[in-house]
Amino acid sequence: MKKVAVIMGSDSYWPVVKGACAQLQEFGIPYEAHILSAHRTPAAAAEFARGARQNGFGVLICAAGMAAHLAGAFAGNSTLPVIGGLDALLATVQMPSGIPVATVAINGAKNAAVLAAQILAVSDDELAAKLDEAREKMAQQIAEKEAKLQAEL
Amino acid sequence: MKKVAVIMGSDSYWPVVKGACAQLQEFGIPYEAHILSAHRTPAAAAEFARGARQNGFGVLICAAGMAAHLAGAFAGNSTLPVIGGLDALLATVQMPSGIPVATVAINGAKNAAVLAAQILAVSDDELAAKLDEAREKMAQQIAEKEAKLQAEL
Amino acid sequence: MKKVAVIMGSDSYWPVVKGACAQLQEFGIPYEAHILSAHRTPAAAAEFARGARQNGFGVLICAAGMAAHLAGAFAGNSTLPVIGGLDALLATVQMPSGIPVATVAINGAKNAAVLAAQILAVSDDELAAKLDEAREKMAQQIAEKEAKLQAEL
Amino acid sequence: MKKVAVIMGSDSYWPVVKGACAQLQEFGIPYEAHILSAHRTPAAAAEFARGARQNGFGVLICAAGMAAHLAGAFAGNSTLPVIGGLDALLATVQMPSGIPVATVAINGAKNAAVLAAQILAVSDDELAAKLDEAREKMAQQIAEKEAKLQAEL
Amino acid sequence: MKKVAVIMGSDSYWPVVKGACAQLQEFGIPYEAHILSAHRTPAAAAEFARGARQNGFGVLICAAGMAAHLAGAFAGNSTLPVIGGLDALLATVQMPSGIPVATVAINGAKNAAVLAAQILAVSDDELAAKLDEAREKMAQQIAEKEAKLQAEL
Amino acid sequence: MKKVAVIMGSDSYWPVVKGACAQLQEFGIPYEAHILSAHRTPAAAAEFARGARQNGFGVLICAAGMAAHLAGAFAGNSTLPVIGGLDALLATVQMPSGIPVATVAINGAKNAAVLAAQILAVSDDELAAKLDEAREKMAQQIAEKEAKLQAEL
Amino acid sequence: MKKVAVIMGSDSYWPVVKGACAQLQEFGIPYEAHILSAHRTPAAAAEFARGARQNGFGVLICAAGMAAHLAGAFAGNSTLPVIGGLDALLATVQMPSGIPVATVAINGAKNAAVLAAQILAVSDDELAAKLDEAREKMAQQIAEKEAKLQAEL
Amino acid sequence: MKKVAVIMGSDSYWPVVKGACAQLQEFGIPYEAHILSAHRTPAAAAEFARGARQNGFGVLICAAGMAAHLAGAFAGNSTLPVIGGLDALLATVQMPSGIPVATVAINGAKNAAVLAAQILAVSDDELAAKLDEAREKMAQQIAEKEAKLQAEL
Repeated sequence: MKKVAVIMGSDSYWPVVKGACAQLQEFGIPYEAHILSAHRTPAAAAEFARGARQNGFGVLICAAGMAAHLAGAFAGNSTLPVIGGLDALLATVQMPSGIPVATVAINGAKNAAVLAAQILAVSDDELAAKLDEAREKMAQQIAEKEAKLQAEL
Repeated sequence: MKKVAVIMGSDSYWPVVKGACAQLQEFGIPYEAHILSAHRTPAAAAEFARGARQNGFGVLICAAGMAAHLAGAFAGNSTLPVIGGLDALLATVQMPSGIPVATVAINGAKNAAVLAAQILAVSDDELAAKLDEAREKMAQQIAEKEAKLQAEL
Repeated sequence: MKKVAVIMGSDSYWPVVKGACAQLQEFGIPYEAHILSAHRTPAAAAEFARGARQNGFGVLICAAGMAAHLAGAFAGNSTLPVIGGLDALLATVQMPSGIPVATVAINGAKNAAVLAAQILAVSDDELAAKLDEAREKMAQQIAEKEAKLQAEL
Repeated sequence: MKKVAVIMGSDSYWPVVKGACAQLQEFGIPYEAHILSAHRTPAAAAEFARGARQNGFGVLICAAGMAAHLAGAFAGNSTLPVIGGLDALLATVQMPSGIPVATVAINGAKNAAVLAAQILAVSDDELAAKLDEAREKMAQQIAEKEAKLQAEL
Repeated sequence: MKKVAVIMGSDSYWPVVKGACAQLQEFGIPYEAHILSAHRTPAAAAEFARGARQNGFGVLICAAGMAAHLAGAFAGNSTLPVIGGLDALLATVQMPSGIPVATVAINGAKNAAVLAAQILAVSDDELAAKLDEAREKMAQQIAEKEAKLQAEL
Repeated sequence: MKKVAVIMGSDSYWPVVKGACAQLQEFGIPYEAHILSAHRTPAAAAEFARGARQNGFGVLICAAGMAAHLAGAFAGNSTLPVIGGLDALLATVQMPSGIPVATVAINGAKNAAVLAAQILAVSDDELAAKLDEAREKMAQQIAEKEAKLQAEL
Repeated sequence: MKKVAVIMGSDSYWPVVKGACAQLQEFGIPYEAHILSAHRTPAAAAEFARGARQNGFGVLICAAGMAAHLAGAFAGNSTLPVIGGLDALLATVQMPSGIPVATVAINGAKNAAVLAAQILAVSDDELAAKLDEAREKMAQQIAEKEAKLQAEL
Repeated sequence: MKKVAVIMGSDSYWPVVKGACAQLQEFGIPYEAHILSAHRTPAAAAEFARGARQNGFGVLICAAGMAAHLAGAFAGNSTLPVIGGLDALLATVQMPSGIPVATVAINGAKNAAVLAAQILAVSDDELAAKLDEAREKMAQQIAEKEAKLQAEL
């Protein structure tokens, strides 16, 4: 399976990024986490993006930490799907035609991981089945809470 | 190759959606365009979303026309990657954990198509090469305009 | 009298929803509270909305918890009056023509209950009298506070 | 059947208000249209609101023209359901607890009329049937457009 | 000298309103504070506004507590200058031509009192002199702080 | 009677400012119009503000043209009441404690003139009577339009 | 004297950029204009920024065309002062500590050129004198317009 | 070397301003800090700005405390480069053509100091070298954190 790269612009975002990594692990998806800055280490960031497809990555997540610029810098240096986190919302409004960034908003880190899983599942039936199970489990949890509420009222 | 579904909430959005379809055609990606409304034909929309993976779709684009709710309705009924257009920006902020919608903003229709192509290219090297060529062409166009400007100044 | 349905998208909103239920009880209006999600249990939510009028409901309140999408999903599946809570503000801006959602903003949960009471009181003179009494009581409370302020100054 | 009052703050809003009136007529709902201003004729507006229930009105629509203040002034002087139009969005955020204004946003005038119809239909099965028919017709129109699109592609 | 009326929509705003009253007292301006609600006691509020000029008031301050609607209701029932507090900002954008509300923003309560003093000072040279002194004192305080900073650096 | 100064930051705002001047003339209030810029002629602007009270002005209107800074510059150099026009909205949010700017929003130029008239009328019964007449006339115009609407429906 | 580089992200912004170039020419400042894109030609843009100081540039202006990302990309690859145009406003809010972008807003292109001139004038007394003259000329123009207005009133 | 002036509108902003001063000291740039208010001590502020270039200043920083108006007042009275802090964002949108204010947003105080250093370094190679070193150090810190993260994962 292709790997997912989870990039943060600063190590202070590790607590947020950890949630995305945990979600990927739960789906059994191989991933790497990296600290790369569009403004403080622009050359390293560009180099990583340019080599990402050849290095076995399938999806790039710019999870947090000036993600707006980071996602743009990655999208400009790679044709892999790039997913931006919450703070990328405003900046992705300005992405030029032909260079999309996929933005996921609230609960960005976790939903970015789920979206990455959905992307890889397009050509991986086993992963698709795992996603359907996870969705089914969410519905069951709500049904149980509804049943509990009706019992209590 | 998996198909892309391009959904609009009303036929008045066909001029916008056409651009996304043209872009998909340029990459040689099979697609279907549909008019389905989250509020006016909710049952038909839900049914389409639930059967999408089995019917050979790989990516769902809610390109325009109350796309906010439409993308949410599709994401709630399918675990395929769902891409929302420009007017989905505000509403995707409210997607619950575990149900991501990938939003692409300005030039939404075209960039949604490019993102769909990038997603399918994760497991299709031929399509990936086409994307790299398209990117290379964009860079050349800018280099030509820069050369022309320097010649003129 | 017709019943009021108070829907929340997740059980974490019970503290907010409880206020709406208390207000309905104060007016002697029969009600049911339910946990139903537009994205996690879309089929159950649609089914509830479709059967609501036949099951004796007169008003549907989407009180909290991704209420934006929830109210839209209910409005799309029922012609009963649908009232959305605070977080429905942005999304109701996007409801298509012919599918209204009535939004009440600050103090949404309580005011949603009062609006539901006003709707049922259109054809129930006894309930209308209760509403007038409650309004009269509010005015008296302010008059008492004004008198106390004048005495103190 | 109870009447609906459609209020505008200035005669310049008649083109907008006319749409709401036409919608009410289509459902066979009796209505009156009035020009009353919260700031320029405050006494007349308050008097109308206070006598509205006794004069046979069931719902008050403040359709356009400084509707923000107008809806507030009507809600403060009557316990009938009050529906505010598009420009009431911001101001209804400030309505105090116990005095709700139901806001319908885009296509406000038409959707305000549909909401008024839904409110009256709570206790009027014939009107409820008309609403269901109208909804059915909307779904059919979309299905026809979808069929036409598939035929054309 | 004409009196200033400081109105609040609810007694919970007394802590804010007290600051305005203290400022008026410092300038030796007679004032009255009142609790009146545009939505909960609309008749009392309108009556107070209509009689204000005859009862010796020169300026009306709607200091806090749904001040948006309150200031509008007072401006609609009196031709005295009406000053709205911070939360009147949005609503005053919607005041119709011919019915102004003077809005003072941050530090609204205190600045509303200073503005009221400036208005009364237009025809009261003694009060004007007090305002100039107060302004002079502010400048001196800053000059002292600047001197202290230079001494410390 | 005290004079009103109507200041604009650039001559391109004369069409807007003319409306304020016409309104003042209608009330028989003496006024002067000036072009003074807070940024391009800061010394001249400050000098005008400092001498305004002695030169017989009672109210200063910064009607348009970077009014935000202009009103602040005038308020900082005079203790006369300062009224800012529409584009002063954002900046007046930042006025420090003790230096109020009275903002009137939509229809700013005309409403600024009406507010200036209300301020001068605090100590001028004849002007107050003119204001009441003008208000009465507005109410009559609406009543006539309402009568015409009822006759037409 | 050091040169100024005026960068645009696309040739469609030449009409805007031309104004900045004209302003620089008026002050006798040497400049170069270039088309470079942060997303479509990221490597060329980074290379230009990295060599800018050695190539004799003193100030970099990202005048228009996705300037938000462009200014960030330049600031990340050079320690020269970087000035961003109007559309950089939102994105510069996200620049990390230590990597400033100087933003000039309305009339961005012209004011960016004036700011560049001011920066170079810090160590160039002749240029500083030119700036003072230009400022003096602006003040005179306003004084002439004011005189003309007084003559006309 | 030219000096930098760091201005604050009130002494309460010293904690913020201190950071800018520390940054300037780290680069070995001479500076002065002052408390000057555009509204409370307008004459002193204007006088300081007018004499700044002659008194050896090269850059003026309006770091905090109603910086919006302060930066405008300084820019109107001097042709030196003026840098505004975070709260200047909104107001600089309204600066007239020919009077730029350079705005630096988040981490305003520190980044204002870095920008001032970059401006002075245009004609000071030693300072330029210090800036490059500081930038290099930032990149190293990120590389170290990235290495530590890879070791830990």
